[in-house]
Amino acid sequence: MRTEKIRLYEEREDVILTSYILDDSPEMLKGKKRPAILICPGGAYMNCSDREAEPVAIRFAAMGYHAFVLRYSVYMEGKGGFPDITSPLVRKEHCIHPNPIREIGKAILYIGEHAEEWLVDMEKLAICGFSAGAHNCALYAVNWDQPVLTGYFQVEKKRLKPAAVILGYPLTDYCYLKEMMGDDPVAQGLFTISNTAFLGTGEPPEELLREVSPVYHINEKMPPVFIWSTASDDLVPVQHSIRMAHALADQKIPFEMHLFEEGCHGLALADQTSAEAKSHVQEDVGQWVGMAESWLEKRFAYDLPELTDMEIMMREGYQKKRVVSCNT
Amino acid sequence: MRTEKIRLYEEREDVILTSYILDDSPEMLKGKKRPAILICPGGAYMNCSDREAEPVAIRFAAMGYHAFVLRYSVYMEGKGGFPDITSPLVRKEHCIHPNPIREIGKAILYIGEHAEEWLVDMEKLAICGFSAGAHNCALYAVNWDQPVLTGYFQVEKKRLKPAAVILGYPLTDYCYLKEMMGDDPVAQGLFTISNTAFLGTGEPPEELLREVSPVYHINEKMPPVFIWSTASDDLVPVQHSIRMAHALADQKIPFEMHLFEEGCHGLALADQTSAEAKSHVQEDVGQWVGMAESWLEKRFAYDLPELTDMEIMMREGYQKKRVVSCNT
Repeated sequence: MRTEKIRLYEEREDVILTSYILDDSPEMLKGKKRPAILICPGGAYMNCSDREAEPVAIRFAAMGYHAFVLRYSVYMEGKGGFPDITSPLVRKEHCIHPNPIREIGKAILYIGEHAEEWLVDMEKLAICGFSAGAHNCALYAVNWDQPVLTGYFQVEKKRLKPAAVILGYPLTDYCYLKEMMGDDPVAQGLFTISNTAFLGTGEPPEELLREVSPVYHINEKMPPVFIWSTASDDLVPVQHSIRMAHALADQKIPFEMHLFEEGCHGLALADQTSAEAKSHVQEDVGQWVGMAESWLEKRFAYDLPELTDMEIMMREGYQKKRVVSCNT
Repeated sequence: MRTEKIRLYEEREDVILTSYILDDSPEMLKGKKRPAILICPGGAYMNCSDREAEPVAIRFAAMGYHAFVLRYSVYMEGKGGFPDITSPLVRKEHCIHPNPIREIGKAILYIGEHAEEWLVDMEKLAICGFSAGAHNCALYAVNWDQPVLTGYFQVEKKRLKPAAVILGYPLTDYCYLKEMMGDDPVAQGLFTISNTAFLGTGEPPEELLREVSPVYHINEKMPPVFIWSTASDDLVPVQHSIRMAHALADQKIPFEMHLFEEGCHGLALADQTSAEAKSHVQEDVGQWVGMAESWLEKRFAYDLPELTDMEIMMREGYQKKRVVSCNT
């Protein structure tokens, strides 16, 4: 495996693509390309959580796919943690929409440029996000063929197309978010902070909220989607997943969804590898990984020959022997 | 993750320790050490198979353990494949017993020397082998406190002790191997070649065969063992696993064994990640990995706190609030 941290902007240290490239071997794929997964950790557009980064990448690498973690533009600029919320946040131009989705595009193009070297099958590249990272992936997936990306990059559309999308506890509808917070001051405070980070203003207009809500933009170009979350999530309500599923069903986009009864927001792999404490380990929720693996396999399973070279050689030897014995 | 290929002998290119070191994070283990697995691929002491190397390492890394692959001394000296068996093999001094077990010792000492830097918990280091690699691990496990290793390395015994052993389709009894081959010329031919590679002679004396057969040397210092193989293995018969289990049971060493009904020799993970062809993919056999994971977790599970820092802070805040409200 080859692991490398790659700056997506030469001059910035915070937007980083980390690669987990599996070794090729003459005993297995023999130079064939493999599918890949690009992972966007969550963190409310304030940071990119380690808990949704390397452990997830290694879990997908263990399924046989190259993995990449994208640390996209967030308010804390790679420093981790959360800002001091007792004073108002400032507008940081380079962190706001559409930069985070453009960085997914940038990452996909970068991987594409190295596809021959790394043996990546670009027609089998999935994107996978958690929480705000899932929002970023979902928003990318409804925009991959739109001018916000194609006009910006000026490349052939198909180079930007993801083959599948995996969303863990996603935020999908900013209009619903605003509607539901009512006059709860804590919810309003969070909404203001988060919007300042991601939209550059604490009071974004309705049309901007709609623009960044993937549920309103699902069309026939949307790749298949796998969604999972917990019904008891009290940070990003499960309705965001359900509304996404509804929109996908309306448009007849292939999707799969698993909503577990119990579990807090941000369980990541829900096992020890992504846990800060035992409260992050939850065996039932952890089943999403195996389900996502089966779902991915339907699309991404290796195209293996029926028999090994040795088996073919032995079978051929056996057939030659049969021919010889028939002739004698 | 940090991957690196480390030469265990400066002057040789063939004996290589490949590291898969997981990143530490202030959001998870916060500088705590992790358990580790050292993997010995198989290959009849002729080569070290890629199929039992990186895919296995990544699967264990995905359980949250640092992983290492040891390419120990074999006849092909890192070139892979098999020698031309139409002419007799030569004796290669540096490949023969006890060099392969000493290289496991060398690797463990090397990891120990870097335990602080890499955050490896040396009291939780398992060794895991397949086929000849499993033989190497089993032979190491019965010898870790014996002069062949302790006398050679002249270090404190405990620095060489493995915490657990995982054996996939192991060869464990050379005397039984010799007895069972009878006068089948193919079996005799293989026995001669393999013995020349590993023991330096095509006709090793009975006491040497016994010396390198782990089943005869199990004692109370033996670490716990997990064994798996397939009952239909026609290269290394399942009796080698069964005889090992019998010897472990006799000595009351904790062990677990899973023998699957069907499956050829060398299935490794039995999924696409270690397969050359579909014939290497077998879902039932692939269950050994989850079973080994559960077995390891009994010994190696992370010692996580009950609650996250945030949960503790919120709970404390709640208690402070309660104190305040009781006081007012």
